Amino acid sequence: MLFMGIDYAEGAAPEILDALSRTNMEQSVGYGMDEHCENARKLIREAIECESADVHFTVGGTQTNTTVIASMLRPFEAVISPETGHICLHETGAIEGTGHKVIHMPSKDGKLRPEQIDEAVAFHEDEHFVKPKMVYISQPTEQGTLYSKAELSAIKERCERQGLYLYIDGARLAVGLTTKGCDLKLSDMPKLCDVFYIGGTKNGFLFGEAIVIVNDSLKPDFRFMIKHCGAMLAKGRLLGVQFEEAFKNKGKLWFKYGQHASDMAEKLREGIKALGYEFAPPAPTNQIFVKLSNAQIEELGKECVYEPWLVLDENHRSIRFCTSWATPEADIDALLAILERIK
Amino acid sequence: MLFMGIDYAEGAAPEILDALSRTNMEQSVGYGMDEHCENARKLIREAIECESADVHFTVGGTQTNTTVIASMLRPFEAVISPETGHICLHETGAIEGTGHKVIHMPSKDGKLRPEQIDEAVAFHEDEHFVKPKMVYISQPTEQGTLYSKAELSAIKERCERQGLYLYIDGARLAVGLTTKGCDLKLSDMPKLCDVFYIGGTKNGFLFGEAIVIVNDSLKPDFRFMIKHCGAMLAKGRLLGVQFEEAFKNKGKLWFKYGQHASDMAEKLREGIKALGYEFAPPAPTNQIFVKLSNAQIEELGKECVYEPWLVLDENHRSIRFCTSWATPEADIDALLAILERIK
Amino acid sequence: MLFMGIDYAEGAAPEILDALSRTNMEQSVGYGMDEHCENARKLIREAIECESADVHFTVGGTQTNTTVIASMLRPFEAVISPETGHICLHETGAIEGTGHKVIHMPSKDGKLRPEQIDEAVAFHEDEHFVKPKMVYISQPTEQGTLYSKAELSAIKERCERQGLYLYIDGARLAVGLTTKGCDLKLSDMPKLCDVFYIGGTKNGFLFGEAIVIVNDSLKPDFRFMIKHCGAMLAKGRLLGVQFEEAFKNKGKLWFKYGQHASDMAEKLREGIKALGYEFAPPAPTNQIFVKLSNAQIEELGKECVYEPWLVLDENHRSIRFCTSWATPEADIDALLAILERIK
Amino acid sequence: MLFMGIDYAEGAAPEILDALSRTNMEQSVGYGMDEHCENARKLIREAIECESADVHFTVGGTQTNTTVIASMLRPFEAVISPETGHICLHETGAIEGTGHKVIHMPSKDGKLRPEQIDEAVAFHEDEHFVKPKMVYISQPTEQGTLYSKAELSAIKERCERQGLYLYIDGARLAVGLTTKGCDLKLSDMPKLCDVFYIGGTKNGFLFGEAIVIVNDSLKPDFRFMIKHCGAMLAKGRLLGVQFEEAFKNKGKLWFKYGQHASDMAEKLREGIKALGYEFAPPAPTNQIFVKLSNAQIEELGKECVYEPWLVLDENHRSIRFCTSWATPEADIDALLAILERIK
Repeated sequence: MLFMGIDYAEGAAPEILDALSRTNMEQSVGYGMDEHCENARKLIREAIECESADVHFTVGGTQTNTTVIASMLRPFEAVISPETGHICLHETGAIEGTGHKVIHMPSKDGKLRPEQIDEAVAFHEDEHFVKPKMVYISQPTEQGTLYSKAELSAIKERCERQGLYLYIDGARLAVGLTTKGCDLKLSDMPKLCDVFYIGGTKNGFLFGEAIVIVNDSLKPDFRFMIKHCGAMLAKGRLLGVQFEEAFKNKGKLWFKYGQHASDMAEKLREGIKALGYEFAPPAPTNQIFVKLSNAQIEELGKECVYEPWLVLDENHRSIRFCTSWATPEADIDALLAILERIK
Repeated sequence: MLFMGIDYAEGAAPEILDALSRTNMEQSVGYGMDEHCENARKLIREAIECESADVHFTVGGTQTNTTVIASMLRPFEAVISPETGHICLHETGAIEGTGHKVIHMPSKDGKLRPEQIDEAVAFHEDEHFVKPKMVYISQPTEQGTLYSKAELSAIKERCERQGLYLYIDGARLAVGLTTKGCDLKLSDMPKLCDVFYIGGTKNGFLFGEAIVIVNDSLKPDFRFMIKHCGAMLAKGRLLGVQFEEAFKNKGKLWFKYGQHASDMAEKLREGIKALGYEFAPPAPTNQIFVKLSNAQIEELGKECVYEPWLVLDENHRSIRFCTSWATPEADIDALLAILERIK
Repeated sequence: MLFMGIDYAEGAAPEILDALSRTNMEQSVGYGMDEHCENARKLIREAIECESADVHFTVGGTQTNTTVIASMLRPFEAVISPETGHICLHETGAIEGTGHKVIHMPSKDGKLRPEQIDEAVAFHEDEHFVKPKMVYISQPTEQGTLYSKAELSAIKERCERQGLYLYIDGARLAVGLTTKGCDLKLSDMPKLCDVFYIGGTKNGFLFGEAIVIVNDSLKPDFRFMIKHCGAMLAKGRLLGVQFEEAFKNKGKLWFKYGQHASDMAEKLREGIKALGYEFAPPAPTNQIFVKLSNAQIEELGKECVYEPWLVLDENHRSIRFCTSWATPEADIDALLAILERIK
Repeated sequence: MLFMGIDYAEGAAPEILDALSRTNMEQSVGYGMDEHCENARKLIREAIECESADVHFTVGGTQTNTTVIASMLRPFEAVISPETGHICLHETGAIEGTGHKVIHMPSKDGKLRPEQIDEAVAFHEDEHFVKPKMVYISQPTEQGTLYSKAELSAIKERCERQGLYLYIDGARLAVGLTTKGCDLKLSDMPKLCDVFYIGGTKNGFLFGEAIVIVNDSLKPDFRFMIKHCGAMLAKGRLLGVQFEEAFKNKGKLWFKYGQHASDMAEKLREGIKALGYEFAPPAPTNQIFVKLSNAQIEELGKECVYEPWLVLDENHRSIRFCTSWATPEADIDALLAILERIK
């Protein structure tokens, strides 16, 4: 059975697992104050080329988003997100659980357009409305699309003009940065936002995200927020060890696994295109959405675990394939063979 | 350098790490819906001898407490805890962050006395006060003490009479149940409370706690709460794999490591006693509090990492030693040798 | 200067003010436990023909909505509202402040269509989404429109089928029920929802809303919620006195003032129609939205305070006129004269 | 029947009621943006001799405390209060409802001692604890006691040294400032704290409190917080009208009614003392706590409504008498006569 629906199906990449095994019996203080975490923070600052950044480690995406957003907003302040954003849909109201409204902005492709920031601010006129204070976007987006450097810069500029913080969810950042045609570098990230996070879970870690705080005014007391949000891992060094391994040599391993997922996605995308399937919608990164008939889906399901996506009409729906650091090239070939057969 | 201050200093016990390595490249669905989790839930139900219990896995203690408590209380309801409780002191207001007051009850030894439940209820007279609805205790307590079966039964009975839920934090439950003289069995736990959790982090897991919900009325939609609280691990099977390994054969491994920590604690305690040190306060489990002079502490610190505890007077403070699943017997000998020397 | 923009511009209706003056030096216990409140509750139960309802008094709309919604939902549960709903837009995130997501459903006329309830439920598939548990609508709506009895019944039926509570915001209920063509009676309300509130503030009270809880499962401990939400008035009898006066004789005074606002609205609407202005959008109750050119608005503004509404195009916007219990008929004539002049 | 238990038993003082009646048919914009509010703000700034203060009006004490505290704290920050503080006990967890821990400090007389501020800060060592950021005290306290100018200054100084905000609840401030021997002036208040509120409800208003924000950093966007907390009154001018009337001539009417309550309290206290009753505990303001036997209480209850306070022993409890702006001198005489009889 092929397993092509998600990019967090396996455990850890071998180097990561090895680092965890190698350091397993070391004795460390808890809660991220150990030397592995300290070193990982240093390595990340080097890789992003931003010596002044604060770096913190958390276990997963929802708790990361919650901690960051709740840390930076006053109670009546709200965060603007494209309606497809992870915080809008897939976090069971965790952001609202901290008291903040998420302002959903229409989006067809998963991206926020810069002018929507002005629209959202203009709409919220006075103290009877929430006050937009932060923009949340994901790079790449939950729809697999990617912001160009120019797009991100335009969003950043609008945020600055409107007095909003910009926070970028990088759950799949490694894939984004290694996608063919991406004109962004990792070192651009700290210049283009106030806070972002570097995803580990979906890039070959057992778990782990690294929050990077660039804006000085957002740095104080962030560890209190992590603990307050239940996001401080007792054996924090597990996060440090993984990021340390992945960010040696300016993130060599982290990029390697992102590149692999991107390469496999590119191969799969080209193959699907050649077979004449319709992308629904097209997306350049490791999430590939394909329109299939119900009959095709039934056939596919016998040999491949995929992620059901949207119902498109009575007879068709889109499904998601997702490549990852772990996807063997043979699986791509096998999947393409199936798709050819059921065409 | 001896490392004797905490019981979460190392990574995972070898069998646990091995299980994670062995299953590392398996492909699973996410979020705890995989077969390892399913099997671990089954094994836990067998070990606790309670087929009807709901079992859920979370990563750490604070998020566990937050999720459980916020799930079970209405906004104006409060949880009663001994003032030494983890939720009172060491969770950076995480419980209050979910909107609930924690009612601190005085405690000298870390335990709540049954009559304090009635006192707390009586004090909160009407709708101008919060309404106590839950009792939180830890077994063993944060002070290293242990409730007897009779004590727990008395607390449970008061809770029932007053219409309160009883929730037991079992972060160190494995040590508690294997402590010499403990008259409780694991299978007693579901009979003595509405919800409890079985700690993994402090018993040789990389991380992980198992929430056991016994009371039927508290079961519905708990997975929504886990996600809402940011406590749902993407690669949820990591929790399943660890608990599966630990709870094979009715928890054989889980008990083994609890027993080791208890044995090492017993040896250390006896040794310290023989040396004539004062316990401050005495405690039967794996946390051992000893009164030392500042001069002694300075000496000790050169060779051993300990946990500073309370300042007792100008010249003395209590310090904590903590044994664990990983403590080598040689370390106990070495520590006792130091303590003998600095006596 | 005419004052036609809001229906809460004056103090209290004379009978209400007189009742407050008359009882001013009486001595009462606080917090709504006095005899006026008790009597007002009884009178309301008679007027709505629902002996089993629980009735509570609060000061204003936002705190009412917050208290009701937060009382009835668990943390991960959400409330569905038409996007024009007061809780979506005009409460500065007060509902989110209690931790709950408000699910905005598209609406052109201020109403929720029954099938949108099914849509919202279907969209929120599993525990990664919030769980819809309540529907919030306003009767009349924030757009001045009105649900028919059939429409409300259809909504109620869908709610029941989907296991959702239905809560109706009746801030302007008196106007709604007295609008020409409304086929609902006050006594229909408790049959068509789980909770609703009877607005006083916008119907000639100094302030005050009466929450009516019909569903038994939602009744327990509601006074705790009122206090928890900061919505319990110390001199609670002020609310009792006002509702007592308004609800004598099955709500005679309350209906009288609703009827006056409705009559004045009807006269104004007919006059505006006769003058050939466009309603934007049309609405049958006391909020009347008219499309004017910017030049017309400038003229109008010299003699009349109106409420700016939407920008329709470069040269036009809609404005709102609002009649109330206090609107003198002469003001309607004067406003129509202005509108005729600036036509 | 004498009514001596609370100071909010009647409606409004005649001048206040008259002002409300006189202005009743005026037409104002809503939400506190009207001219009465504007003027009242100006008058209050004059009376407190602080031109730079921001003044906001709210309806009642709990919502005032909630709004102020939630506005000024980040999620992990906590407020220190004497354990007798209103926010500790009598607000049904409203502060915790906004996510913040209230740190209860022991107090026998209702006051916080300056050194307790240092203790509380020292106790909360690091990011595993909440971070104390604000001190809440009441002047006079909930026990009827009064801080001297020196005491308040010492508290303010400690707060500054520790980087804490000082917030003073002035629900009964008028009584406090007019109490015999009080060495504080109203104009001292803005110098001695960051925020305080001037109570109206318990000093002859229908309702109403005036929040005074002195610290510039706490001023921005406070109206958003008021609305977010459900504390913004639609007919806001009702608050303006009352404070305008009370604060003409530097608060002449406000002081007059405070003075009356203080005078009546003084007379009652002296009378009780002369009769040889024991105060439990003694207090110089308008709350008078007296130790009575159960038999005496039973007799008293036949002729006088009092407030039950603490159970002192099997045969005795303390009860509270409370004088107010409305207490007729004859009632004091009558009460003393009863107390003489049951002695």
